[in-house]
Amino acid sequence: MDNQQIPYKIYLEESEMPKAWYNVRADMINKPAPLLDARTRKPITLEALSQVFCEELAKQELDDTTAYIPIPQEILDFYKMYRPAPLVRAYCLEKKLETPAKIYYKFEGNNTSGSHKLNSAIAQAYYAKKQGLKGVTTETGAGQWGTALSMACAYLDLECQVYMVKVSYEQKPHRREVMRTYGATVTPSPSDTTAVGRQILQEFPGTTGSLGCAISEAVEAASTREGYRYVLGSVLNQVLLHQSIIGLETKAALDKYNIKPDIIIGCAGGGSNLGGLISPFVGQKLRGEADMRIIAVEPASCPSLTRGSYVYDYCDTGRVCPLQKMYTLGSGFIPSSSHAGGLRYHGMSSVVSQLYHDGLMEATSVEQTAVFSAAQLFAKVEGILPAPESSHAIRVAIDEAMKCKETGEEKTIVFGLTGTGYFDMVAYQRFNDGKMGDYIPTDEEIAASIAKTPVIDA
Amino acid sequence: MDNQQIPYKIYLEESEMPKAWYNVRADMINKPAPLLDARTRKPITLEALSQVFCEELAKQELDDTTAYIPIPQEILDFYKMYRPAPLVRAYCLEKKLETPAKIYYKFEGNNTSGSHKLNSAIAQAYYAKKQGLKGVTTETGAGQWGTALSMACAYLDLECQVYMVKVSYEQKPHRREVMRTYGATVTPSPSDTTAVGRQILQEFPGTTGSLGCAISEAVEAASTREGYRYVLGSVLNQVLLHQSIIGLETKAALDKYNIKPDIIIGCAGGGSNLGGLISPFVGQKLRGEADMRIIAVEPASCPSLTRGSYVYDYCDTGRVCPLQKMYTLGSGFIPSSSHAGGLRYHGMSSVVSQLYHDGLMEATSVEQTAVFSAAQLFAKVEGILPAPESSHAIRVAIDEAMKCKETGEEKTIVFGLTGTGYFDMVAYQRFNDGKMGDYIPTDEEIAASIAKTPVIDA
Repeated sequence: MDNQQIPYKIYLEESEMPKAWYNVRADMINKPAPLLDARTRKPITLEALSQVFCEELAKQELDDTTAYIPIPQEILDFYKMYRPAPLVRAYCLEKKLETPAKIYYKFEGNNTSGSHKLNSAIAQAYYAKKQGLKGVTTETGAGQWGTALSMACAYLDLECQVYMVKVSYEQKPHRREVMRTYGATVTPSPSDTTAVGRQILQEFPGTTGSLGCAISEAVEAASTREGYRYVLGSVLNQVLLHQSIIGLETKAALDKYNIKPDIIIGCAGGGSNLGGLISPFVGQKLRGEADMRIIAVEPASCPSLTRGSYVYDYCDTGRVCPLQKMYTLGSGFIPSSSHAGGLRYHGMSSVVSQLYHDGLMEATSVEQTAVFSAAQLFAKVEGILPAPESSHAIRVAIDEAMKCKETGEEKTIVFGLTGTGYFDMVAYQRFNDGKMGDYIPTDEEIAASIAKTPVIDA
Repeated sequence: MDNQQIPYKIYLEESEMPKAWYNVRADMINKPAPLLDARTRKPITLEALSQVFCEELAKQELDDTTAYIPIPQEILDFYKMYRPAPLVRAYCLEKKLETPAKIYYKFEGNNTSGSHKLNSAIAQAYYAKKQGLKGVTTETGAGQWGTALSMACAYLDLECQVYMVKVSYEQKPHRREVMRTYGATVTPSPSDTTAVGRQILQEFPGTTGSLGCAISEAVEAASTREGYRYVLGSVLNQVLLHQSIIGLETKAALDKYNIKPDIIIGCAGGGSNLGGLISPFVGQKLRGEADMRIIAVEPASCPSLTRGSYVYDYCDTGRVCPLQKMYTLGSGFIPSSSHAGGLRYHGMSSVVSQLYHDGLMEATSVEQTAVFSAAQLFAKVEGILPAPESSHAIRVAIDEAMKCKETGEEKTIVFGLTGTGYFDMVAYQRFNDGKMGDYIPTDEEIAASIAKTPVIDA
């Protein structure tokens, strides 16, 4: 199809929007290893999981056989407020790079949470409400998940308690006010409001926190409050399930114009956006219907896929959560204070880990300053100021497009632009002032952290 | 047409996007009074105007006979990056209010400038580039215009010097970094970098500035730099012309579903968004093709239409710009330090002023705390955290919808949601903390300010 026929932005009609989430586990030959109960070290039961999560979400967490799970009408209606998200043809970026590659990005930033996180937040809040709960607790890194959950809870009239990774809390005070405007309570983590928080503070005084710490605090808070459950914005199977809406819409938009992607790129912290984006395409690969390269991009400062070990580990620093088999830097790993708060997680979704382990996808890591250079270039030519997290994918998309320029190949590159950087201006300021550095953990640091990680044959 | 057939968001196809701007002056029976040269007090010539503005823009400023002006292809291509903007049916707000009214809003916030300002920024930057200029200077209030212009200049590789109203500069340091990321230079106004700035600082030490001051500084800076011209984000005829894209798209989207608006509402500072939104509808009224109420909403702290005088006045505090016949509070009026930086202008577009004077539209003013209450409600049910400026229109849209609830009338209300409040979290924090107040100037204050305004019979 001629380029000129493809619009700058492909919007699906409401009638074309997916009506069911896609559960890639159903098509996986090697299923992700089961979660293990932290106490018994045996595969966790629905009953045990339901003490932490809402019952329906616990079911989704354990379901690795149902391929399509219908999206409840209430959630479909909420999705219509900010979805479908556009699939954008990056004509201006292509022109700037003088590349024969065709670049597309799925833009998830056109909502107030500023990212894709709202896709799962509304689902989790909906099931909590349906179960008759009073409220939910959670952690947030960059603040996008916390904002998304605050929005979903405000919409459904649920209480919302957010533990926000301290470095983000300090760098992004305005994020806190967005959450407060939506009625949430926000606490910097680690905090002295939980036993696990106090313990982490004692062990690592002055720590700027991590997602792992904040998870521990939120789980403890949920377990000590009547009518509360814990919800999580990434890593879990249920989150990837909800986020499959990204990939399903992307695929529908590509199919509409008969576009076959050669490379699909996503940034990877816990794996929620990446897993959601790639699920339907991995499904095609698994069923032998299509083939393409899939690339996960992680920060060099927190390289779980590229430099971690594929073992059972705790999902949280405080070791109150179940164990998960995943690529991990060790649940005690606290990454440097980088500016991609949403990617500072020690592990990786077990689905993404298994797919990577089975060679169904690749992974690479990039350094912070190179990421911000890509972000600035993108902002200038495509008009969207991207989140630092999302800019990891931009960096590699540009690199791949430049390879095409060398070889003359007209590859079709699709990447996930997960969100906007409007609350990341402290990071941009550091970059604008030429004061941003790169931090890469040494092999010794990673080995020392991994050495403390439980290794279990299950 | 049945409600259920109307989607949550109406997006035009690229092929349905307007190809020409609409110049409402061509259809006005009483044309806006001509600009007067500040020195001669005679109608300003194209030649004199071209010393301040780019030539093509000066022509557009003076053209009150050409109804449709074709949009250059380069601008149409840029528009495709972030337009068409959706016309959203506020189903959730209607449900929350339990009103029989049908509420629509045209959402202009889905771009990094966060507002409609980009529509005119790219046009003005394009004509500057085409004229072979080196750069442009401007002022910015809330920072949205400055951001928009920085984006447009970065795209076209033009230099950009922004004078930012001091109160906004201090409340919104992150805006400054967005502009810097796009390569602009940003100076708080009033500053000591211009003669007029130094004079204002001497006369009003400690002033938090106003759009009028910043305009004076930017005009002076443009006139003292080689290869520079001044550009303005509101008030001018040329800006309303470019912003007609808002109204044209809105009308096309309404027509697509055969929806007839009963009330059209827009916030009004200098009149750019309001003028752009209403132009095609005013055209219908002028040509006798349709009728509807049109309501301008201004802040009670800066009520030019509702409490100002319809006289000739300077467009800027420093009195270096031409004089314009408009509703004004006096060019020396410096409004209180409210949180709607984009609405803190002493006057009003001469087009809007004339339409108001001729009874083609109404005007009302609302207080700040009532505006933020509406903003918070809207954010919770519609999922978009609105700019304080835009929230003035939300307030009145809700008020009108509540009147429908009393009377049972199923009116169709359309309002302009000009932008997002992501850089206004200091204001939201004040509101969240219950520390926001209202300020309304006294009759004596306004009378004293008007007394210093030149009154000319022309």
